[in-house]
Amino acid sequence: MNSRTEQAEGRAPDFTERTLDSRPIYQGKIISLKVDTVALPDGSTATREIISHPGAVAVIAVVDGKLLVVEQYRKPLERMQVEIPAGKLDGEEDLEEAARRELREETGYECVNMTLLHSFATSPGFADEVIHLFVAEDLRPGEAAPDEDEFLTVGALTPEEAVRAIAEGRICDAKTLLAVYAWEKYRATGRWGWPVR
Amino acid sequence: MNSRTEQAEGRAPDFTERTLDSRPIYQGKIISLKVDTVALPDGSTATREIISHPGAVAVIAVVDGKLLVVEQYRKPLERMQVEIPAGKLDGEEDLEEAARRELREETGYECVNMTLLHSFATSPGFADEVIHLFVAEDLRPGEAAPDEDEFLTVGALTPEEAVRAIAEGRICDAKTLLAVYAWEKYRATGRWGWPVR
Repeated sequence: MNSRTEQAEGRAPDFTERTLDSRPIYQGKIISLKVDTVALPDGSTATREIISHPGAVAVIAVVDGKLLVVEQYRKPLERMQVEIPAGKLDGEEDLEEAARRELREETGYECVNMTLLHSFATSPGFADEVIHLFVAEDLRPGEAAPDEDEFLTVGALTPEEAVRAIAEGRICDAKTLLAVYAWEKYRATGRWGWPVR
Repeated sequence: MNSRTEQAEGRAPDFTERTLDSRPIYQGKIISLKVDTVALPDGSTATREIISHPGAVAVIAVVDGKLLVVEQYRKPLERMQVEIPAGKLDGEEDLEEAARRELREETGYECVNMTLLHSFATSPGFADEVIHLFVAEDLRPGEAAPDEDEFLTVGALTPEEAVRAIAEGRICDAKTLLAVYAWEKYRATGRWGWPVR
């Protein structure tokens, strides 16, 4: 196991897949799709179906001990979902500005401190989407202004309510699950995430 | 805030988007794409770009205090990534069987107990993909047998190595980040996830 461990720590072989051909399939309002033909490390070829997405921001905002959430219909899942505030990036928008904008638009809240906690790929097998997860602190309420085609209800969950929503499947997306874990860690340790050494 | 909180706990209005039209765009090897026209709650219409994906399993497997990981090239991100073992579902395959299969194929490990921890949507805004995250316990080593077009290196990370890999961006996908949080919670509390009440 030792040699394998060493490899996973940075000395693994480079399995870069060289692009031989890239075929655009669809250019949509939010996502686009292409099919790439790639050369594998052994010289054989394979195809990769790849979704391009502008990326998104999501915000952990805790007010009076409760996590701000929005409940909205998610067409791909065909059901209502409870999620932390989030939205896609507009062009070359600054990440922190985007996080402040989404929090304000969806919940009305403004914050003094907005700190990046994690940037993570949602589906690295078929999509390039990265979600930048922020923590908002020193919050004050204001007026929400959701996008035109966005219908949502703002709420706030205690830790127990968040856990119950997970058990009931009303919270079931990666970013919100991560937020609940990170929030629990924060309550237990007094810090968000892990210190960068 | 109170009335809003009550709404987010189950009494929020139903914002179901009724499908007026569904246009298939692409049917691929792994994903498919359609564009739906939907009726919004106010009677106006909008389009939804939707990726269908068979779903996937992912496995948290800890051997001798180390988290099993695989390092592989992710074409959508154009870089190598360190992730927990995972793979898409084959047809109507049983979830637990799929988790055992992926763990065995990618790492060689077999396990006695395989328990579902969370099922979560990766990108509920544009995809129906759900990842079923399992915990494997009572592990014993065996022979790995990755798929034909899968080139990967197996490794195992201590908690400190996992945190460093996150800081360095070598771990940067939602399921692996969730796994690291869940593992830390397990080490601190002796239990995975939260009890269902």
